[in-house]
Amino acid sequence: MNSANEHINKHFFAVIPAGGIGSRLWPLSRAAAPKFLHDLTGSGQTLLQDTWDRLLPLAKGRIMVVTGNIHAQAVEEQLPELDLQNIILEPTPRDSTAAIALAAAVLAQRDPDVIIGSFAADHVILDQALFEATVKEAIEVAATGKIVTIGLRPTEPSVAFGYIHKGERLSTKSACEVLNFVEKPNIKIAKQYVDSGDYFWNAGMYIAPAKLLLEVLKETEPELHESIMALASAWGTKTQESEMAKRWDKLKKIAIDYAIAEPAAKKGLVAVVPGEFEWHDVGDFASIAELQSQGRKGNLAVLGHGRVLADSSSGILVSDTGRLVALIGLEDVIVVDTPDALLITTKEHAQKVKSLVDVLKASGHSELL
Amino acid sequence: MNSANEHINKHFFAVIPAGGIGSRLWPLSRAAAPKFLHDLTGSGQTLLQDTWDRLLPLAKGRIMVVTGNIHAQAVEEQLPELDLQNIILEPTPRDSTAAIALAAAVLAQRDPDVIIGSFAADHVILDQALFEATVKEAIEVAATGKIVTIGLRPTEPSVAFGYIHKGERLSTKSACEVLNFVEKPNIKIAKQYVDSGDYFWNAGMYIAPAKLLLEVLKETEPELHESIMALASAWGTKTQESEMAKRWDKLKKIAIDYAIAEPAAKKGLVAVVPGEFEWHDVGDFASIAELQSQGRKGNLAVLGHGRVLADSSSGILVSDTGRLVALIGLEDVIVVDTPDALLITTKEHAQKVKSLVDVLKASGHSELL
Repeated sequence: MNSANEHINKHFFAVIPAGGIGSRLWPLSRAAAPKFLHDLTGSGQTLLQDTWDRLLPLAKGRIMVVTGNIHAQAVEEQLPELDLQNIILEPTPRDSTAAIALAAAVLAQRDPDVIIGSFAADHVILDQALFEATVKEAIEVAATGKIVTIGLRPTEPSVAFGYIHKGERLSTKSACEVLNFVEKPNIKIAKQYVDSGDYFWNAGMYIAPAKLLLEVLKETEPELHESIMALASAWGTKTQESEMAKRWDKLKKIAIDYAIAEPAAKKGLVAVVPGEFEWHDVGDFASIAELQSQGRKGNLAVLGHGRVLADSSSGILVSDTGRLVALIGLEDVIVVDTPDALLITTKEHAQKVKSLVDVLKASGHSELL
Repeated sequence: MNSANEHINKHFFAVIPAGGIGSRLWPLSRAAAPKFLHDLTGSGQTLLQDTWDRLLPLAKGRIMVVTGNIHAQAVEEQLPELDLQNIILEPTPRDSTAAIALAAAVLAQRDPDVIIGSFAADHVILDQALFEATVKEAIEVAATGKIVTIGLRPTEPSVAFGYIHKGERLSTKSACEVLNFVEKPNIKIAKQYVDSGDYFWNAGMYIAPAKLLLEVLKETEPELHESIMALASAWGTKTQESEMAKRWDKLKKIAIDYAIAEPAAKKGLVAVVPGEFEWHDVGDFASIAELQSQGRKGNLAVLGHGRVLADSSSGILVSDTGRLVALIGLEDVIVVDTPDALLITTKEHAQKVKSLVDVLKASGHSELL
């Protein structure tokens, strides 16, 4: 690493927004025990711990976690190395702009030149070396005054992700200008995007100078910016709690993509660095099964500590109980066995789990959510 | 009822052999809680209680239960009206001849002219009036010195049952001579049987003078007969326990069909009375689902106290826990949810549950059997 890099990296701080329940992963993922607190890959660690370990070589001692109050204990237990001054606890979820902007503002007070990188707590990334190299390039580009997003090379015309439309090449490496961000497309448009080679999946990984993020926010959402700056001023002082109590629940709920990334792209302030590493958002049980089977057909993957007896069955069993699960003659099945709720469906219907959670909500079964 | 009938019925005693685990109904049916102790029809009563209630109009105060020692408490709780002198407890299962012959011998000591009728504890019979009329005719025919079996009119060429081959008409009613009993046939032969109209399903319901049963047994299995008579002599005396301890576990294990019914048929001693009532042996979960759905397609039947949330699913859920079970997109599924084991299969594979139980046995999971 050259000294320019060293300098850059000293100003780099990783931020892990650890939020989002993951309704499509019910009944494993719950309000009280969301997706990122589970081992969904069979790695022996939770997604949050995997994310932490992935960032460690890039930002040892410089990782901040933003999570809900109710997850404080679990997060601290799972991440014993997390310095308590590097945790922001949200009384309620206020979407990604509030979470990341507050982290940016708090960190900018400590180091005005800080470059932050935001990485979701619940993604799966293989190829550590490629990931590190990509983030390092993103930091370098960010240091030139850009908001940098990592664009995932699409492996299929997915309609589950937003896309990043790339423009001109920016540097000697692989970074490009971002022309614009586009919402989740329909399948026809998704195919056009993939065929063109000009579009990446947007996984919401942003690397940028904290100051720049906050400047953009000040223009696009001045009220939200003002509240965030007030909270950051009070951070670590005795007025922190009263300011949070007063302001937090009133913060506008808006995704960082809309509040910062899109408006910044229109001003030519956003760059994309392609991520060539294998990435999964494990958004539903079908994708976990896919990840587990690694393309092998007819396998039954087992996550958790359940005993299983399977005959002519494939798919995935996620067990959160010690019960014996016997499966006979079920293909591409999804079984999620928890102490108070049991889900049985198929890969094909994995996306429907969210509607089921909506039904539970509507029928007042909050104890199961 | 005429006075001949009254006389006959005074000598009638119903015997319920309550044994057999029902491996194909695992994990609901267990060694410690076999099939007959469960409500498999949604009637709100167990199969044993349904059997008791069905026999009550025919034999009030004259119903004997033969069951395993380990089920004594459950049976007594489920049948509070059962007189303790009318229960025979088996230290171990010795098949149906031992169970029914001991009941016959004990009852013959009380009333040498007793006619006993043996009815399994785990069958489902609809049409109470038809059942009663059929048994009454069987008792009348038995009183003429016959072993009478109730033959079920086949509704399909089943290979799961033995068949009864009928001969000449015997009386003015519907009874016929039995030419012979035949083992479970293959599908081709089963079709021939059904097409001929000369065959009934054998459900193992036998009505006969106790003395006649014991006479046949004396010829076919003299050692077994001798032990049974010795046990009956000791019954209700202070040597009962020591005789049982000495003899029971050495009794030959043989089904009553082989030890008594078949040999007796060869001697022209057996008659069949057709049973035109609806009968189910609920041998596996597919047949329970069938019974529950009453032919309606696309239904999800629910037995037990589980809460269920189903979308595009059919089949049966049997719940022995209070958990919520969510099903999405599964057709003809079978889900059996118990505190320590969960079975998921399909109607098509319902028969395979027995092999799974064999695997559990072989792998030493006796705590789950």
